[in-house]
Amino acid sequence: MRIDGRRLDQARQTRIQPGILATAEGSALIESGNTKIICAATVDDKVPGFLRGTGRGWVTAEYGMLPRSTNTRKAREGLRGRPSGRTSEIQRLIGRSLRAAVDLERLGERTIIVDCDVLQADGGTRTASITGGWVALAIAIQQLVPYEAIRTTAIRRYVAAISVGIVDGTTMLDLCYEEDSRAGVDMNVVMTSEGEFVEVQATAEGQTYTKGQLDAQLQLAQSGIESLIAAQRKLVDFS
Amino acid sequence: MRIDGRRLDQARQTRIQPGILATAEGSALIESGNTKIICAATVDDKVPGFLRGTGRGWVTAEYGMLPRSTNTRKAREGLRGRPSGRTSEIQRLIGRSLRAAVDLERLGERTIIVDCDVLQADGGTRTASITGGWVALAIAIQQLVPYEAIRTTAIRRYVAAISVGIVDGTTMLDLCYEEDSRAGVDMNVVMTSEGEFVEVQATAEGQTYTKGQLDAQLQLAQSGIESLIAAQRKLVDFS
Amino acid sequence: MRIDGRRLDQARQTRIQPGILATAEGSALIESGNTKIICAATVDDKVPGFLRGTGRGWVTAEYGMLPRSTNTRKAREGLRGRPSGRTSEIQRLIGRSLRAAVDLERLGERTIIVDCDVLQADGGTRTASITGGWVALAIAIQQLVPYEAIRTTAIRRYVAAISVGIVDGTTMLDLCYEEDSRAGVDMNVVMTSEGEFVEVQATAEGQTYTKGQLDAQLQLAQSGIESLIAAQRKLVDFS
Amino acid sequence: MRIDGRRLDQARQTRIQPGILATAEGSALIESGNTKIICAATVDDKVPGFLRGTGRGWVTAEYGMLPRSTNTRKAREGLRGRPSGRTSEIQRLIGRSLRAAVDLERLGERTIIVDCDVLQADGGTRTASITGGWVALAIAIQQLVPYEAIRTTAIRRYVAAISVGIVDGTTMLDLCYEEDSRAGVDMNVVMTSEGEFVEVQATAEGQTYTKGQLDAQLQLAQSGIESLIAAQRKLVDFS
Amino acid sequence: MRIDGRRLDQARQTRIQPGILATAEGSALIESGNTKIICAATVDDKVPGFLRGTGRGWVTAEYGMLPRSTNTRKAREGLRGRPSGRTSEIQRLIGRSLRAAVDLERLGERTIIVDCDVLQADGGTRTASITGGWVALAIAIQQLVPYEAIRTTAIRRYVAAISVGIVDGTTMLDLCYEEDSRAGVDMNVVMTSEGEFVEVQATAEGQTYTKGQLDAQLQLAQSGIESLIAAQRKLVDFS
Amino acid sequence: MRIDGRRLDQARQTRIQPGILATAEGSALIESGNTKIICAATVDDKVPGFLRGTGRGWVTAEYGMLPRSTNTRKAREGLRGRPSGRTSEIQRLIGRSLRAAVDLERLGERTIIVDCDVLQADGGTRTASITGGWVALAIAIQQLVPYEAIRTTAIRRYVAAISVGIVDGTTMLDLCYEEDSRAGVDMNVVMTSEGEFVEVQATAEGQTYTKGQLDAQLQLAQSGIESLIAAQRKLVDFS
Repeated sequence: MRIDGRRLDQARQTRIQPGILATAEGSALIESGNTKIICAATVDDKVPGFLRGTGRGWVTAEYGMLPRSTNTRKAREGLRGRPSGRTSEIQRLIGRSLRAAVDLERLGERTIIVDCDVLQADGGTRTASITGGWVALAIAIQQLVPYEAIRTTAIRRYVAAISVGIVDGTTMLDLCYEEDSRAGVDMNVVMTSEGEFVEVQATAEGQTYTKGQLDAQLQLAQSGIESLIAAQRKLVDFS
Repeated sequence: MRIDGRRLDQARQTRIQPGILATAEGSALIESGNTKIICAATVDDKVPGFLRGTGRGWVTAEYGMLPRSTNTRKAREGLRGRPSGRTSEIQRLIGRSLRAAVDLERLGERTIIVDCDVLQADGGTRTASITGGWVALAIAIQQLVPYEAIRTTAIRRYVAAISVGIVDGTTMLDLCYEEDSRAGVDMNVVMTSEGEFVEVQATAEGQTYTKGQLDAQLQLAQSGIESLIAAQRKLVDFS
Repeated sequence: MRIDGRRLDQARQTRIQPGILATAEGSALIESGNTKIICAATVDDKVPGFLRGTGRGWVTAEYGMLPRSTNTRKAREGLRGRPSGRTSEIQRLIGRSLRAAVDLERLGERTIIVDCDVLQADGGTRTASITGGWVALAIAIQQLVPYEAIRTTAIRRYVAAISVGIVDGTTMLDLCYEEDSRAGVDMNVVMTSEGEFVEVQATAEGQTYTKGQLDAQLQLAQSGIESLIAAQRKLVDFS
Repeated sequence: MRIDGRRLDQARQTRIQPGILATAEGSALIESGNTKIICAATVDDKVPGFLRGTGRGWVTAEYGMLPRSTNTRKAREGLRGRPSGRTSEIQRLIGRSLRAAVDLERLGERTIIVDCDVLQADGGTRTASITGGWVALAIAIQQLVPYEAIRTTAIRRYVAAISVGIVDGTTMLDLCYEEDSRAGVDMNVVMTSEGEFVEVQATAEGQTYTKGQLDAQLQLAQSGIESLIAAQRKLVDFS
Repeated sequence: MRIDGRRLDQARQTRIQPGILATAEGSALIESGNTKIICAATVDDKVPGFLRGTGRGWVTAEYGMLPRSTNTRKAREGLRGRPSGRTSEIQRLIGRSLRAAVDLERLGERTIIVDCDVLQADGGTRTASITGGWVALAIAIQQLVPYEAIRTTAIRRYVAAISVGIVDGTTMLDLCYEEDSRAGVDMNVVMTSEGEFVEVQATAEGQTYTKGQLDAQLQLAQSGIESLIAAQRKLVDFS
Repeated sequence: MRIDGRRLDQARQTRIQPGILATAEGSALIESGNTKIICAATVDDKVPGFLRGTGRGWVTAEYGMLPRSTNTRKAREGLRGRPSGRTSEIQRLIGRSLRAAVDLERLGERTIIVDCDVLQADGGTRTASITGGWVALAIAIQQLVPYEAIRTTAIRRYVAAISVGIVDGTTMLDLCYEEDSRAGVDMNVVMTSEGEFVEVQATAEGQTYTKGQLDAQLQLAQSGIESLIAAQRKLVDFS
């Protein structure tokens, strides 16, 4: 039995509220247990230098935590210059994962920036940012079509993510903060609606893990991600 | 008739939802028209250097806007070092205003930091931060009493704020963004439940104003602030 | 009786020495009691992005203090990145105030930057920067005319500023540093030669103030500003 | 056949020259094909705040590239503030990987900093930094023993790393720069002398991958890492 | 004949006005032709880390230019982080030169910071900063004696500096800005009242120079420095 | 007798290995005693703003130290923003010195950047950077000729540098770190193959020096530089 009463293979309750911001082209509030994140997608008509003139688009992400999203206040990054290593690592992961959902040719020379801002954090913020960010991204892209900014939708698949870990020797799905802080292996998995992987990151601290343990974790992750994609499907239908 | 159908002396509908964050000692979501701000109060056992050993406490504030709180995305301040001049000016105003609500002796040597993060912006974010920030602050201070961290509450009065302005020659209360961007005079007023002023800032750009116009604006502000304090009273009773 | 023997409604002796720098298009040394500030105006042929192609000009200001302008040495801001909140707030105030003196259409697409550098500080540096900065600005604009860079002068009025405050319950004009550091209410007023306001900022710290006290302070400020404008008139005649 | 004539399962020639710097407690020059990295280990008697008083030590890493380690000159990070996201991500990976090699209790309250500076880069710099960094780290720790700074060696296992990838649909071991820049899946694997994993990072860009492809890559990585550990064994014997 | 009518071996008129700032422990305004610099000395009771507990003091300097000290406005360094290379080089030179004037043992564990702020620049600002900075420094040290903060004065000699250069093949003393910008060799010499050198810096750009040219320049510099020390002697007598 | 057994007028053994990096247009590893520096020259087709359109080129330098190039680890400058004052001073010196070796007209509108990165430091790193940097620069320029990027070589002379100093009252050539840290006068001399000076910097700390001592040092420097230029001549023949 886990700290919050869940089974080892049970993910937390996830709710996604699309269109939470009147100001953004696409947005969603994702709540996964006590983790709450606002995702907002912006369509920008510029692309990074290496794509100029290629006709191809780009998807990128930014990630932030409100100072009191955590039990102990964290200083605002704004007061310390460049994003920290952790923030930068998360931003790059979210961006890469969401690009896997999009046909960048069909998107045309525009960039979609997905901002993921954590209102309340209880573990799994990077994976929830991917799952919720996909919804904001998809809404922003869908709304480009009717206005004929793009001919057909540039979305090509669903992408969602979840964490798995080994805590005190036991493999479990979707760690909350307290589990995560005691985990010896922490794994983030990003998958598509076709059942393929976009990213696998399995990090040990204070222990190591075998191939068997890696496989067991991947299997748990896959079942969790299937549920999340089912939830996305109810909100956005792009076929 | 105003752009959103209000009378000249009519403030926007304001809702304050206390305790919005499970992670903070005090918190509130304030919505004033389309402006939405999360206020979170943190109790810190340290004080700034000039207060060490005096037995007195301090109240300070930080202010931020989510990148997509506005119709056009704003770059995260985190990527550009120190807070901008505008942010810094707003933070100092909120901090000063909230200090007027507190008996710093009675608070004891601790600092309360009030974070005001704008989820959606439609004018009046600095004044709504003061009004909502007061609620987060008051909750955080109230909860110090039962645990005997302080003997009696250190709150001594309600403090709220509202904007007034002259738009196309007409004086009006509680400007929304579109009115604010066309205003020739922009005024922020902070008052207490005793009907006294904490701060008056009346700024002209592109015109100037007479003493009569100043007085008319102050009168509108006073009536608006009285309603806001009535709302605060329903949420927090510290007598 | 005040600390330096002045009456409550008496401003400090102010001397303005125009043309103090051979290197700048316009300049002035303003001395107000022991406060000494060099103001220098630069004519720049560029305008900020939002004005490009509009035919309109801009006036902006920068403010700095020499490290030993104060009794205790202050670290050079240059060593700590962006200007501090206080500096930034003052710069914005000076810029707004001086823009009220100028017909930006007539100025044409050029920016005038007014640098105010405090050699010695004894209170009232932001208001003296406005009063002295106006002289530097006006000289720089006047010298544009004969060379036909602009057809007629773009100056449309005199603008000056002074501080007022409540110290130990007493309202007084033009606070020196020692009075300012004990003031419960600190007010800066910027007015034009037509007797209208450009800016009123009345800030309480450790007390609050009534409408009657606000009015009394404004009246003192007005008489002080009239004298300062009389001094400006002797130095620059633009009619 | 690969661009440099290697078989798909063939790693590049790796040479490790221990003790390359007279100035550092431990050091090594690792050359893997045309990739050349100087690794230097520093023993510092301080530990990060969260370890103070626990009796436990820490291992951390920094990573840099000389401006002309690449065919096109890269600006020195020193001129742009904080390390970039990529640098920070690599530093964290090297640090985590090397900590898995050390018994932090036995190390005692000291930090070992491993600097990895790339003289010449041709792909695989992060994995070579781990493999070479292990040698510098082990030498620095071994030399603590005779002087009785620690009772017995704090090294508990060998740790090495290698990259694998899918290039144009083909899985191959130890990518050089040209292969890496065309890879659709890029994977870094860190393993111990006991055949367990410390870190698996498999990143897709522009494609996705199946479980079967993941497994094939892991198998290639394992054989490559075994050879690298054999090389480390010849240089440092800690049993 | 030179651009401003001087002979080749003729320095510019130099005036030093001691005690220019009421706020600083020692100060002077030095004017050398059109170059005008405020020098202010601060006595600080702390010393840099490497001197703590040694009983020895330190002298350091900072250097700045007002934005309109030059004919073309220079951006404030404050807006761009760390001091520039040029500023830093000048600060180190002034600091080293002034330390040669002081018996650091006798000064005791205190630091004297000499701020040199250029109001108007016309060449030779670093050498004038040394000559004027010496006066500010000496006044600050002299005033420590009567209050018995130190037993006898810690000043042990006069130190002054001047520039020399080769302009269009001709060697000349004390270059003004226009000469300096055309100089092929630019030399700064710092000497003591005993006729010895503290610093010689002779820099060629676009040409080189012979030993004979070096000697000729040093001789000119020596005669110029003797006059400056004579001026210092009239202002401060420390014997 | 000196600490490492050398005569007072004896320079350390210097070896220069050209072409050390496969990635750079020109490169060299210079070893002078225990000082080891990698110099790499980059040909860039841009020039600084003040040279655009003039047809003239530029040579500039950057200098860095690996964290463990010294016996005590130095923090990476990359983590602290702009280069330090010392680094910036050295970079400017190397750049100026190398420009004296080149005909900038003949070079055409391109910049050569010479990166000098210290692998191991034992005194004299700035002078060794000049001597070794010249080799990297010359190789990069020579290779421009055959490809007809420039018609004839733009190199016009050899340039090398060495340090001299007064240690405990004794003048000696080419100080190692331990001598340098005890030196009362520290001098860096840069000369050409024609026996003329590019730069002389003689700095006293804790003592002063006479004209006679200056001359003695210059003579030692000249003999040391002649040997270094003889070594350069063997590696690069540009006549």
